Amino acid sequence: MKVEVCLTPELIHQHDLAGKLVVVVDIFRATSCMVTGMAHKLGSIYPVATIEECTALGKKGMVMAGERGGKKVEHFDIGNSPYDYMDKQWSGRNIAVSTTNGTITIKKSNGADEILMGAFLNLVATVKYILRQSKDVLIHCAGWKGAPNLEDSLYAGALIEKLIPIYHLDGDSSLLAHALYQNNKDRLLNAAKDSAHAHRLSKLGIIKDIEFCMTLDQFDVVVGYDGHKLFRI
Amino acid sequence: MKVEVCLTPELIHQHDLAGKLVVVVDIFRATSCMVTGMAHKLGSIYPVATIEECTALGKKGMVMAGERGGKKVEHFDIGNSPYDYMDKQWSGRNIAVSTTNGTITIKKSNGADEILMGAFLNLVATVKYILRQSKDVLIHCAGWKGAPNLEDSLYAGALIEKLIPIYHLDGDSSLLAHALYQNNKDRLLNAAKDSAHAHRLSKLGIIKDIEFCMTLDQFDVVVGYDGHKLFRI
Repeated sequence: MKVEVCLTPELIHQHDLAGKLVVVVDIFRATSCMVTGMAHKLGSIYPVATIEECTALGKKGMVMAGERGGKKVEHFDIGNSPYDYMDKQWSGRNIAVSTTNGTITIKKSNGADEILMGAFLNLVATVKYILRQSKDVLIHCAGWKGAPNLEDSLYAGALIEKLIPIYHLDGDSSLLAHALYQNNKDRLLNAAKDSAHAHRLSKLGIIKDIEFCMTLDQFDVVVGYDGHKLFRI
Repeated sequence: MKVEVCLTPELIHQHDLAGKLVVVVDIFRATSCMVTGMAHKLGSIYPVATIEECTALGKKGMVMAGERGGKKVEHFDIGNSPYDYMDKQWSGRNIAVSTTNGTITIKKSNGADEILMGAFLNLVATVKYILRQSKDVLIHCAGWKGAPNLEDSLYAGALIEKLIPIYHLDGDSSLLAHALYQNNKDRLLNAAKDSAHAHRLSKLGIIKDIEFCMTLDQFDVVVGYDGHKLFRI
């Protein structure tokens, strides 16, 4: 079996999605939030592309979540902090979420055989599930505004490291991501703090989120996407 | 001063070229050939996009050089091996060259303040020149058919390593390339041999070229591009 990496959704047209298990990753912070939410007592999470779609679902009773440029959209209920998704007041509620990069990456993964949300927070749970599926894997990094980013590439490398005994690396982006991980595996948090996005988020005072998103295996949950909403596998 | 990396010409629109010194790199094999040629007694090298343009310049007396998919174009004089560019029979002649990825990357670098051709073969010469210029640097990797590749990213990391005492890294792609280099600096050739492109070239029997292109500092030449042709700086 093969594992390949797409470093940004702007390059996804170079990959064949058919028959593959795609892991979407947006560490700061969309997929980290989604994994956190699905590990708690939410109903489900509906990723949507625009603020307007999110607002429309809000009018139908969903919690509205999302950010633009790292900040909560003004009239939304919550922003894009994983801590927001742990709040007991949302138990049983459905959440509609729109984020800068994460939602686009999810939508651009349509056509795959199966789509998962990946985060450091549920790395081992995701690996265990993948190893039971016997499918080629594509790790689809959200990046930042179309450019590759450090934290998503680092996650791709960490996932590859766990798959290597069984999978072989396909394409040079997988070699790049794996080298990045190998070079930083003993300092994941500090490596992520060096990233351009962490610098942006630090300016917004969100260092607590960065630290949480870089924590390994907090949740034993595998999160799938059925083309409309997330579900626990 | 800043150094940034564009991992493939498909992402170059995310970078601002104005005022920058751009180093174009296509290790296997366009820029390695160009640096080799300009270190020998050629007249000049004219990069062109299409086989037709190359053929037209051939009719005006230029040597026709280039490949498609790693193989020499049938009616051309030479293909894309650095050894072709050392052949004394071309002394004093101008060469028109069209390659799969390299030429596109050069053309997409237009708009920069200054454009250089980079290769491991003239790494230190290029570094010394850059340090005298006091400009922000963008390393523009040719990649492979729009995707990032290992050998060009490795060169980007090697160049960054030399610039780090003076330059700071701008953007996460520069962190990725630098991590790749740091993880492989004691095994550059073997790392390059792991790349997808090296596998393709090996099948074509071009292992000798791979080994040569990965050799450091064979030539004390700096190669510029004036929008039409290459020149020795």
